[in-house]
Amino acid sequence: MFDPTEKLKEFIACESVSADPAFAPGLRRAQEFVSALLESLGMKVELVPTAMHPIILGAREGPPDWPHVVIYGHYDVQPPDPLDLWTSKPFEATIRGERIYGRGAADNKGPLLVHLTALARLLEERPDLPMRITVVVEGEEEIGSPSFSEFLARYKDRLQADFCLLSDTGNPSPNQVVLTCGLRGILTFELEVAGPKCDLHSGLHGGVLHNPIQALCEILASLHDAEGRVAIDGFYDAVLPAEAWEQAELGKIGTTEEEYQRFLGVPGFHTPPGISPLEATRFQPTLEINGIGGGYQGEGSKTVIPSRAFAKLSCRLVPNQKPLAVWQLVKSAIEFRCPPGVRGTLKLGHHGRPYVVVPPGRSNTPPDQNPALKAAFASAHEGVTRVFGRPPLYLREGGSVPIIADLKSIVGLDSVMLGLFLPEDNLHAPDESFNLRVMEKGIEVSRHILSSIAGLAG
Amino acid sequence: MFDPTEKLKEFIACESVSADPAFAPGLRRAQEFVSALLESLGMKVELVPTAMHPIILGAREGPPDWPHVVIYGHYDVQPPDPLDLWTSKPFEATIRGERIYGRGAADNKGPLLVHLTALARLLEERPDLPMRITVVVEGEEEIGSPSFSEFLARYKDRLQADFCLLSDTGNPSPNQVVLTCGLRGILTFELEVAGPKCDLHSGLHGGVLHNPIQALCEILASLHDAEGRVAIDGFYDAVLPAEAWEQAELGKIGTTEEEYQRFLGVPGFHTPPGISPLEATRFQPTLEINGIGGGYQGEGSKTVIPSRAFAKLSCRLVPNQKPLAVWQLVKSAIEFRCPPGVRGTLKLGHHGRPYVVVPPGRSNTPPDQNPALKAAFASAHEGVTRVFGRPPLYLREGGSVPIIADLKSIVGLDSVMLGLFLPEDNLHAPDESFNLRVMEKGIEVSRHILSSIAGLAG
Repeated sequence: MFDPTEKLKEFIACESVSADPAFAPGLRRAQEFVSALLESLGMKVELVPTAMHPIILGAREGPPDWPHVVIYGHYDVQPPDPLDLWTSKPFEATIRGERIYGRGAADNKGPLLVHLTALARLLEERPDLPMRITVVVEGEEEIGSPSFSEFLARYKDRLQADFCLLSDTGNPSPNQVVLTCGLRGILTFELEVAGPKCDLHSGLHGGVLHNPIQALCEILASLHDAEGRVAIDGFYDAVLPAEAWEQAELGKIGTTEEEYQRFLGVPGFHTPPGISPLEATRFQPTLEINGIGGGYQGEGSKTVIPSRAFAKLSCRLVPNQKPLAVWQLVKSAIEFRCPPGVRGTLKLGHHGRPYVVVPPGRSNTPPDQNPALKAAFASAHEGVTRVFGRPPLYLREGGSVPIIADLKSIVGLDSVMLGLFLPEDNLHAPDESFNLRVMEKGIEVSRHILSSIAGLAG
Repeated sequence: MFDPTEKLKEFIACESVSADPAFAPGLRRAQEFVSALLESLGMKVELVPTAMHPIILGAREGPPDWPHVVIYGHYDVQPPDPLDLWTSKPFEATIRGERIYGRGAADNKGPLLVHLTALARLLEERPDLPMRITVVVEGEEEIGSPSFSEFLARYKDRLQADFCLLSDTGNPSPNQVVLTCGLRGILTFELEVAGPKCDLHSGLHGGVLHNPIQALCEILASLHDAEGRVAIDGFYDAVLPAEAWEQAELGKIGTTEEEYQRFLGVPGFHTPPGISPLEATRFQPTLEINGIGGGYQGEGSKTVIPSRAFAKLSCRLVPNQKPLAVWQLVKSAIEFRCPPGVRGTLKLGHHGRPYVVVPPGRSNTPPDQNPALKAAFASAHEGVTRVFGRPPLYLREGGSVPIIADLKSIVGLDSVMLGLFLPEDNLHAPDESFNLRVMEKGIEVSRHILSSIAGLAG
């Protein structure tokens, strides 16, 4: 049996940044790493080509009456910059205390290895395991999974399974696991505002035209009201309020607002009246500015009026918001608010729907669910309770894994999302890390789920 | 006699960007170029050390009853970026049509050479010219002349003269010269807005905190009202309205608003009601955003909430606004408007006072002026009328040459500012150029002024 920590070090060393073409060799190394691992488990491995980075498909086949589980993960990671804020190098995994540091340690290389290690241990013990398994590992998750829905449509038949098992969501603390039952959708876009035909001297021409940076700021400032709500007509219309059982689960989370504020390091929260910070990230949609640029950004000053300025934005969406419907609202509002002295151009980026799965026995108005999914939730509940000493919480999460909604709408598959990373894991940020004790416990839970589904004692 | 065009090519080749330490060798080459030129005119040359780039002081001495003229210019230039927008290389002077292209061609290398060439021609003809001349060429003008007021205080005695002659201002067209009689002051500053302790995942944490870019945009958007006025209490309080003769002069400028709009390449103007674009740049103060940056600015998207964002701003000030008084108003307004969920930090940059000189015989309430200044204006009027075939206009200009106000307040010297560059010269922008026909005419006007002041026939 391999050592999962050593494997994770190897995996982190593959510099698999999907957003930047310069990292192509690292992406190939990551593909080879995952393929080799799946082959070592006796799986048939296939690289499904996409426009950018292929999807790795591993299959353990068997008779149709065997249960069938899909395991999902991604081998690509976020860009490592700003590099100077890392304590150790992002692609040289380093262990400090009970944590392993490196880009992708938590998102998603560590958590993916949790399930593959669980499977490896189970197969070592029971080479005749009566279970079909399909492992899907993509390389474009961090750029919005642009090829994934097409892949799902094409491979739909081979993905007919009981449920999908994955870990790409978080927990509030090392001892409190969350079985995530909802994810926000996403919508990314860019706004460019153009004014004069070239940069101008701010003395000779200052005071006669609408400075593109100023016009951009005016548009962006108008997108929220003073209390923090998105100020776009209709933006909240489709939002489904949280159910009573969801509010009750959130009450058990054990994180205080003071702790959360200290963790973020902000002078104060900024949520609309009546919505607590812990609710805001789970039950409310957002519109955030992710980047802005224009004019002179170097040392000292250069007194220009720039020809253009831009901003990168994204929305997080909750059930039942539809990304393209929200896009129409946002687009119309920005176009309407663009002042006459400049020209605004909007460009739609990637987008994905929100997802929600109601865990069995929670809702007063339960949806129709297949028995295998119910059994999966039951075994996950049991496994978490046994290994972590405390039952899981059932919460929605603020992040987006757009492919989960696609799995449901295209293939019909619901997901069991075992939370594994922690707030202090610094996802998408410098000093990303993963807790090795959580990793080992996660392996035990995953093994419990898989062996229960296979009909073995847990 | 040297050829001024060839000299200008040599001068442009000295890469003298004062804002960027990487250009130190180019600044030294520019100093050597100017020093050698002044020595070739028989002047005693001194390099006056400053914190960054020394001031070059050239002196033609003589008996105290000779008239004394100070000629001012600067050898430093703006940064050349964005480089990809230049048609030819910024530091390889290139002649196309009647224009010479290169960084500094118009601001201020060409215009400085106009006066030095006029002087050279006059001295060649009259080596015994009965006139004292002090040439002051600084290397920190484009970064706000931080050392100049201290230099003036120290060299005050040697600068006691009849007037200062310079060309660092513009004309509306090649045939219409302006004797600039006012300049806007300047105030530069930077605003940084900090939020969470590090960049955050916009999914996991989006919706709970005041995004620093958004807070920055809200502050910046609040600094103007919808009609384009600066929305800061007291900002306009000290502004002196333009006199009737100034409005009358502006009426003769010959540039239509349509032509000016086409020149700027904007969809429309943005001036407060009742203030025309041509008035706005001359008689009104401004607050402009010169640069902004924060979060992810690369290709594609990175869904972060950035830890911080910044903007670079500047005000142009008109008589009688005081830079540090305006700074207090702006600072208080921004501090007051900084929302509680972020921390704002303001940093004051360089600043300089506005300047105004009333040309003799114009105002109904004329100030007390020395006869030599009156004679200088008269000879300039005569020279311009003769060489350009049309009398000069007397207008204030929107740009800032802060040292002109310092020359007045510290040394007591007024300035005769012979306009030489044109709107199409692209100052501070790519493809900066200077009109060689205007250059040659400017040399003739300068020669006329200098020889008149020396008591020779013009």
